[in-house]
Amino acid sequence: MTTISALSTPAADQPLAPTLITRRDPRPHDVVIDIAFAGICHSDIHQARNEWGGSHFPMVPGHEIAGIVTEVGSAVTTHRVGDRVGIGCFVDSCRECENCLAGEEQYCLNGHTATYNGRDRETGESTFGGYSTQIVADENYVLRIPESLDLAQAAPLLCAGITLYSPLMHWQAGPGKRVAVLGMGGLGHMGVKIAHALGAEVTVLSQTLSKKEDGLRMGADHYYATSDPATFTALKERFDLILNTVSANVDIDAYLGLLRLDGALVNIGIPSQPDSVRMFSLARRRRSLSASTIGGIRETQEMLDFCAAHDIAADIEIITAAEVNDAYERVIASAVRYRAVIDIATMPTVESLS
Amino acid sequence: MTTISALSTPAADQPLAPTLITRRDPRPHDVVIDIAFAGICHSDIHQARNEWGGSHFPMVPGHEIAGIVTEVGSAVTTHRVGDRVGIGCFVDSCRECENCLAGEEQYCLNGHTATYNGRDRETGESTFGGYSTQIVADENYVLRIPESLDLAQAAPLLCAGITLYSPLMHWQAGPGKRVAVLGMGGLGHMGVKIAHALGAEVTVLSQTLSKKEDGLRMGADHYYATSDPATFTALKERFDLILNTVSANVDIDAYLGLLRLDGALVNIGIPSQPDSVRMFSLARRRRSLSASTIGGIRETQEMLDFCAAHDIAADIEIITAAEVNDAYERVIASAVRYRAVIDIATMPTVESLS
Repeated sequence: MTTISALSTPAADQPLAPTLITRRDPRPHDVVIDIAFAGICHSDIHQARNEWGGSHFPMVPGHEIAGIVTEVGSAVTTHRVGDRVGIGCFVDSCRECENCLAGEEQYCLNGHTATYNGRDRETGESTFGGYSTQIVADENYVLRIPESLDLAQAAPLLCAGITLYSPLMHWQAGPGKRVAVLGMGGLGHMGVKIAHALGAEVTVLSQTLSKKEDGLRMGADHYYATSDPATFTALKERFDLILNTVSANVDIDAYLGLLRLDGALVNIGIPSQPDSVRMFSLARRRRSLSASTIGGIRETQEMLDFCAAHDIAADIEIITAAEVNDAYERVIASAVRYRAVIDIATMPTVESLS
Repeated sequence: MTTISALSTPAADQPLAPTLITRRDPRPHDVVIDIAFAGICHSDIHQARNEWGGSHFPMVPGHEIAGIVTEVGSAVTTHRVGDRVGIGCFVDSCRECENCLAGEEQYCLNGHTATYNGRDRETGESTFGGYSTQIVADENYVLRIPESLDLAQAAPLLCAGITLYSPLMHWQAGPGKRVAVLGMGGLGHMGVKIAHALGAEVTVLSQTLSKKEDGLRMGADHYYATSDPATFTALKERFDLILNTVSANVDIDAYLGLLRLDGALVNIGIPSQPDSVRMFSLARRRRSLSASTIGGIRETQEMLDFCAAHDIAADIEIITAAEVNDAYERVIASAVRYRAVIDIATMPTVESLS
């Protein structure tokens, strides 16, 4: 075991604070990674505050992890010391169910092992995430980060990037397709960049026009304010695909009305309360309402390679470890443009915490 | 104009009664049809009683029509006198929008012309449906009924048949796919027959097991009662496609739980009240919730040919014109097995009504 420093919260009503945790000695297939950057995802906040229920504490959040391999287990073949690598939302899965065998480990029928707030499949111990200086994980759940991507900007791709890339691919966004991205935050801004790179006509639907200039710079063709009722008239039956990144409940029927025949409204944000939907809104144009979470390992690697090929990464604000609690408040206030990333080099040393 | 006899209701709170109506002289592209049989669809009742709103009266319901061509307009090329033909839920559409051009006239962007309770595109007059001895319609909206199909049993295919065939084709039911049909009524029994003929593994989900023997005879592989909570445990994550033919609100989240990765719950029945759905029920297996209505003209013809090739038609009860109001009550009570069809030969004569 190795003792390292991390940002941990002891309970749902407590802030994150520096602490010491231990990482296991590498198993034969494990890769040891010195973490360089960790993105802050809104779901970190939901889980740290137990807003979805089922959280266990102490918790070290973080599932947008970028770093360098420092050691590999005896049987590792896919990564070498010195490699630039990343870890996303899960670090293991059953590897046997039909979804794992199909490369869709995110939908593992036996439950994937979350990068944090999960339980190790061998020991049952809590998993700790990327707000820490080191992580140890099975090589099959570690991604290669292409050389051309900046590590800090690549970190958010491991969750925000794949969360948008996967549904864009699944619902075949590309040339000739009209895609709307609802919400212009950490998820939404990645959706704009990736959908544009895929060749789709991209429209941002945001509460206001305050981020319009950014949206157009990132590749949006059109930008509309959802606070303006005229938007819903102007865009009636327009889109093939709407990706809803808003985690609060929205007027589902109103957005379904913006879809053409066979169009899909795909939720990325998951509200804690049920949504209301009229079947007639679906039936009149054979529309569908769906939802999607992250992506499989193979597809996550494909996404990283795609982003490198198209020179895409997250727009970020680099923060220090000491700023993490403030950053949480700024995420909630939608004040971050567009992803806060912790510079892990600013973590307190083990010595200072001992 | 020709005066004919029909069953008509003068207002939402009135029963159907024999009356005289007129049919137009054939336009160049019109086909004149002597109606032999007209099926009773639950939506006839909804509209005759104005339960969906927007009904106009007097109303002659009926959009499951089978009969014989007796006259054709000067420019008609697709049908001849003596042909066995059918008319479904619509008799015209704009023919210009992208959905019409794609053969999906049921989703006409300018609104298709309903067979009854609609407005003729030329004159604006009310359209009258199949509870009558004759109908006049544009040849492009008239279907050929194959010789091997009994006219009485074929009539319900024009709505109930295509309403199930279209989503089964769209969501690619076939060998290796597990399809559930929720509700074992006029729509559901057609779903069982068609899904079985397509080669899918078919499961009926019905309130009770009272129609189990019928379901298995029609081609179901499995039959479960939804009133038994154990059904939802036994069938967890089982289906690729669930066709929900129930027009009342059901527990959408419970049925979504029966879908495997990328499975679809498709509503055929359209409840008048909104449904509640948790995005998490969709997200955890990238499931979709959708809805579908009837089918286009090309697909309806394909369905009729498919049914003839597979010796499929509706299970029906033939009733007289005088029994139609009683039949409505029996439809509402789910007592009809499985479709009531009016024998138009039992209609009062024009002379007797004059």
